[in-house]
Amino acid sequence: METVVMKFGGTSVATPEKIIGVAKRAIREKEKGLRVVIVVSAMGKTTDTLLELAGDISSQPPKREMDMLLATGEQVTIALLAMAFKMLGHEALSFTGWQAGIETESVPRNARIEQIHTERIEQALSDGYFCVVAGFQGVDKIGNITTLGRGGSDTTAVALAAALRADKCEIYTDVDGVYTSDPRFVTGARKLEQISYDEMLELANLGAGVLHPRAVEFAKNNHVPLSVRASYSDEPGTIIQEVITVEKNLIVRGVAFESGIARVTVTYKKAFNGSLANIFTTLAKHHIDVDIIVQSITDDAPPSVSFSIKEDSLEETRRVLAERQEEIGFLAATYEVGLSKVSIVGSGMVSNPGVAAQMFDILRLEGIPVKMVSTSEIKISVVVPEADMKLSANALHDAYGLSR
Amino acid sequence: METVVMKFGGTSVATPEKIIGVAKRAIREKEKGLRVVIVVSAMGKTTDTLLELAGDISSQPPKREMDMLLATGEQVTIALLAMAFKMLGHEALSFTGWQAGIETESVPRNARIEQIHTERIEQALSDGYFCVVAGFQGVDKIGNITTLGRGGSDTTAVALAAALRADKCEIYTDVDGVYTSDPRFVTGARKLEQISYDEMLELANLGAGVLHPRAVEFAKNNHVPLSVRASYSDEPGTIIQEVITVEKNLIVRGVAFESGIARVTVTYKKAFNGSLANIFTTLAKHHIDVDIIVQSITDDAPPSVSFSIKEDSLEETRRVLAERQEEIGFLAATYEVGLSKVSIVGSGMVSNPGVAAQMFDILRLEGIPVKMVSTSEIKISVVVPEADMKLSANALHDAYGLSR
Repeated sequence: METVVMKFGGTSVATPEKIIGVAKRAIREKEKGLRVVIVVSAMGKTTDTLLELAGDISSQPPKREMDMLLATGEQVTIALLAMAFKMLGHEALSFTGWQAGIETESVPRNARIEQIHTERIEQALSDGYFCVVAGFQGVDKIGNITTLGRGGSDTTAVALAAALRADKCEIYTDVDGVYTSDPRFVTGARKLEQISYDEMLELANLGAGVLHPRAVEFAKNNHVPLSVRASYSDEPGTIIQEVITVEKNLIVRGVAFESGIARVTVTYKKAFNGSLANIFTTLAKHHIDVDIIVQSITDDAPPSVSFSIKEDSLEETRRVLAERQEEIGFLAATYEVGLSKVSIVGSGMVSNPGVAAQMFDILRLEGIPVKMVSTSEIKISVVVPEADMKLSANALHDAYGLSR
Repeated sequence: METVVMKFGGTSVATPEKIIGVAKRAIREKEKGLRVVIVVSAMGKTTDTLLELAGDISSQPPKREMDMLLATGEQVTIALLAMAFKMLGHEALSFTGWQAGIETESVPRNARIEQIHTERIEQALSDGYFCVVAGFQGVDKIGNITTLGRGGSDTTAVALAAALRADKCEIYTDVDGVYTSDPRFVTGARKLEQISYDEMLELANLGAGVLHPRAVEFAKNNHVPLSVRASYSDEPGTIIQEVITVEKNLIVRGVAFESGIARVTVTYKKAFNGSLANIFTTLAKHHIDVDIIVQSITDDAPPSVSFSIKEDSLEETRRVLAERQEEIGFLAATYEVGLSKVSIVGSGMVSNPGVAAQMFDILRLEGIPVKMVSTSEIKISVVVPEADMKLSANALHDAYGLSR
């Protein structure tokens, strides 16, 4: 008998009516002869309400107690969803993280799943129950409730699917699949039927919000057949798997973009070899995320390094560099704001040299200046002026044949 | 080192401010050199909100899932209270029912505590932590979350105090102790310094809302030194213990009363011996609670039995008796409404014959007709017209020297 793990996020379970809708959806799967595990998040704004309550008590609540508090969110959803199944004439059992045997590290707010003791769920599935599992939470070895951090419910679903050797893991969300680009900005954006784990991982890391990179990585490492589907329709969505049948022989599979980028350029004395490491160590200590790094060393000028950061960490970056200039040992730092990052992603790039050159050519034809470049095996990112972001994305989307 | 278990109900933890107040109160105890365990209920109206949510899904939600849902209420409170301790510079750990080792029967909504595995709490106390425990909840042998039913948090506190061999168990509430009678109706009502377990048990069963009878019984059976105190003041409250120093040699310790009582009188054929049992078996099957039962058998009339019920179950009682008249085998049933029950309680009664006669005399002097009587070793209850309830209670309270 095939097993499916279905995951529904906060907006899909925001009201009692929507919870009943989720139950009906799962019942349709069971009626096809599947064993069904449902993973759910906290209802709509529950987490925000709980965070507010904690904020009324303390500005720095202990993390263990935050986990204790936040874990109630999903516990409410699983109880209500199990009630909905019963009301619709089906048997269901709800399970908190610890009841589902989800054992994690002892790292509050950001625990990783270490193993899943599936006996109880397996038994309930064999007995014909729908199993309703709280996402986002687990328990450490000494019995403390932990939460998995951002994207936690996606990770719960994928990890459960792996542990149960489920035949599929379906992530239900408020979009109907993974798109070649953001349809709000790119006219021709269309849904992909398939995408590889690596491509999805790059897109997820680039901010395509449908699926958390941690969950994608877990699915990739454990060969979990994953799909992203709409909770409001029966359309098949996008399948994420190892080997994909490339549609129309597309080299590029998606175009992602992000605004609010700043570029920092630091010049330093050639003699002072430690400067480069010092800069990034110092920034890391202050939790400033650095994205693209480009170094340029020529004979006739002092060496310099440029790196991109989010605009909202610019102030902190300036402060830190100014305070530590002597210690780090650099000559000057300049800052440029109003930038964006545009990326193309596709596993086909590996075997197609010249994709980068082609990309620069497309942007040049549109008159868009490229400020920085970063490449990986299946991704090329460029930093361009924010005013050109939408134009760049659309031009690349069209040029690589992604538009419908 | 002495150990104290402090229990705070829903109104005492209704807001973040009140939760901080509870933490401050507990810190004062610790500063006296005590080890402190705090048991809390769900915040204010949380349980009502959760019940409403369940009601939106199903009119008959499965009990296991109701427990799963309701248990989140106390879990929120314990997390917030532990945060409050930390914010005030103290170390605390919160524990759900299962984390506190509270093992119950597998009876959802109304489980009894079977045993408490105190290792984790003992360790945390030895390590100097405040232990914050969720009241009202536990876990059964196979790991289902259970709740203890009405008065559950009181029971958690008393059971934990017994298991930890605590030196005292203090129930903090919105009144400052146990009163000789309800001060809203009886002018001279005053707070008792001490009361015996048995007296408290009778008063609790008679509806004195400060403490649940189950908790009192547990305290009595396990010799837990109990007290009822105000959460808003430092007054000592009322101590509940086995042997009490009788104040002013009072025989009667309290006067309790309850309105909304109906009397049912059923006459049956002398020959039909099974009638009496039939009546009460039938009513029990329909979950109709019968309180006082008085039987009268004379030679010259058909035998009859009178019993008191709550007025709100009158309609159901009439329906059930009418439907089953033939089967039960009775001649006629009459109903009287607009009655009340007034009770006097005191362990001194056992060794003081004539208390009942004295009680009837007091009521006779006030011109109050007594419709039914029921006596136990330490309690006498009478059913009188509702219009005379307040007068009866005040007259008895004064006559037995309870008024200040």
